[in-house]
Amino acid sequence: MVKPKKLMNNPSDIVSESIKGLVRVYPDYFHQDESYQVLYHPNNDEKVSLVSGGGSGHEPMLSGLIGENMLTSVALGNVFTSPDPQTILAAIKHASTNKGVLNLVWNYAGDRMNFEMASELAAMEAIQTEMVIINDDIASAPKEKRAERRGIAGMLFVAKIAGAASSLGYDLQTVRDLAQAAADDTRSVGIALTPCSIPGKPANFMIKENEYEYGMGIHGEPGIEVRSFESANEIVIQMLDDIFADFDTLGLQEEVVVLVNGMAATTSLELYLVANEVGEYLATHSIRVHDLVVGKYCTAMEMAGISITVMRMSEHRKSLYDIPALTPFYSRYR
Amino acid sequence: MVKPKKLMNNPSDIVSESIKGLVRVYPDYFHQDESYQVLYHPNNDEKVSLVSGGGSGHEPMLSGLIGENMLTSVALGNVFTSPDPQTILAAIKHASTNKGVLNLVWNYAGDRMNFEMASELAAMEAIQTEMVIINDDIASAPKEKRAERRGIAGMLFVAKIAGAASSLGYDLQTVRDLAQAAADDTRSVGIALTPCSIPGKPANFMIKENEYEYGMGIHGEPGIEVRSFESANEIVIQMLDDIFADFDTLGLQEEVVVLVNGMAATTSLELYLVANEVGEYLATHSIRVHDLVVGKYCTAMEMAGISITVMRMSEHRKSLYDIPALTPFYSRYR
Repeated sequence: MVKPKKLMNNPSDIVSESIKGLVRVYPDYFHQDESYQVLYHPNNDEKVSLVSGGGSGHEPMLSGLIGENMLTSVALGNVFTSPDPQTILAAIKHASTNKGVLNLVWNYAGDRMNFEMASELAAMEAIQTEMVIINDDIASAPKEKRAERRGIAGMLFVAKIAGAASSLGYDLQTVRDLAQAAADDTRSVGIALTPCSIPGKPANFMIKENEYEYGMGIHGEPGIEVRSFESANEIVIQMLDDIFADFDTLGLQEEVVVLVNGMAATTSLELYLVANEVGEYLATHSIRVHDLVVGKYCTAMEMAGISITVMRMSEHRKSLYDIPALTPFYSRYR
Repeated sequence: MVKPKKLMNNPSDIVSESIKGLVRVYPDYFHQDESYQVLYHPNNDEKVSLVSGGGSGHEPMLSGLIGENMLTSVALGNVFTSPDPQTILAAIKHASTNKGVLNLVWNYAGDRMNFEMASELAAMEAIQTEMVIINDDIASAPKEKRAERRGIAGMLFVAKIAGAASSLGYDLQTVRDLAQAAADDTRSVGIALTPCSIPGKPANFMIKENEYEYGMGIHGEPGIEVRSFESANEIVIQMLDDIFADFDTLGLQEEVVVLVNGMAATTSLELYLVANEVGEYLATHSIRVHDLVVGKYCTAMEMAGISITVMRMSEHRKSLYDIPALTPFYSRYR
């Protein structure tokens, strides 16, 4: 197996040295904890804070979601490794306000366990927390086992809604409920064309020249099946058919926001070509698009591939979604 | 040779379908010519317009530089292929104002020839144009043959300065002179870790597992030499030593802006790690950094690699650089 080349010094330092670069490039924006791999942006006591955390290797997520009306702080593990409870506790403490902290957590066993432990430690310091689990990946478990599904790029939309709710000064329980409802109405599926790898190690797996993995996870978890490579048109139809079939009651005239998310190696030409196919599909099915977001927001190291995320919208959720948000890696204005 | 998988339908349609996606995602922003692969953003008669053009495959360049106080229109060829003179003429006509049009052209034979022909055609329609050639890639020819050097990511900084000069209402000759001076003070060098490919064709070339190409061009043009893979620290020192040696009189206390540009497949972790190394180098050499920009702005299809660009700053050029600019893919605020 080939050991991929990466621009780094010591593989064990790639995350910490990259965090230094992020702080160097955005010194007014990202603040780093002195002892932990934690980044934060000042919040004020009038608003619920939002904390997330997880393994590195998905940049710009999660750190790229820190910003105005988005996340307050993140706890970063090494590549594809959950941050430990002490790191998460440090993120919670940097974010903590009088209004409490909402944790947005991808549904992986390690992340959940460590966030739960950190929340208990926070409670001992009189910091009130709530948690929303992100489990948007429909390929990772069947519909009847939704609680087992992994979280992927849908984090962006849940953070957007939670950040908007927080900006309105809502209390912790209300922000939690709105974020949970957004998570409940979000579905994603991903495909991989080439593998990813942990720094210093060979590729996690191989994908044959003329095949791709349908439903692959962002750490290279096997997908639903290996398929012969197809046209973008066929792939997009399959992905959106599966996503919309997974919603219980999605009807005509429904309104959605859609994220076409690229993995690192996928070209911008391909991403916008896919976005065009997505737009055609939605028009054909009379599904209205409140927003179509395209970019590399949730990657899997140097993998080539994409994911598509759909969040259902109501009038109220649209009003939240349209509250401006700004981070160095994501913005929305109205 | 492996034929890389790409998310497309017919390889010959990848550019035109991707342009459709871009217009679909940013309908208020990008306007497309009905007959040509031309994108434009409205300008007004109080300002010189800026036009660029070149082969596709470097996204978000060049279309991603269209916006407020940046480019007015671009002519897009197919992947790694110059747009023809009629396409460039269409871009010039969409941009044309009473104050004239400045063409910013990468230094490739086809691009130059076609822009010169288009400028002659424009003159026949009483549209006044001037041209600035971008030739920032120090690896593509020795210093004494600077006129032969190719243009790469330095386009971003030259467009930034030209757009700022235009925004002040300066006349065509003045905008041209300021852009030319910016181009003269800009140097870049790139490296490649993995190859790129034209859609539907096998990779342009191969790079061995433990090697990289120092000085490789954005179409896979051979670099200065093939080298054994090194640490990011060693690679960055080599790149910046070569760039600074190429400036004639760069002294202590000089001030610069720097772009750490990633090719498609390079991870964000690596880019910010490299940015940290760049920051350390500049601090060690007492070179002041007016701005450090990091991102994937000028790519080479799915290649893994980076380029570093340095533009020297004067007080006047800093005042131009600090004028806000906004495009969907690049922004600067002060």
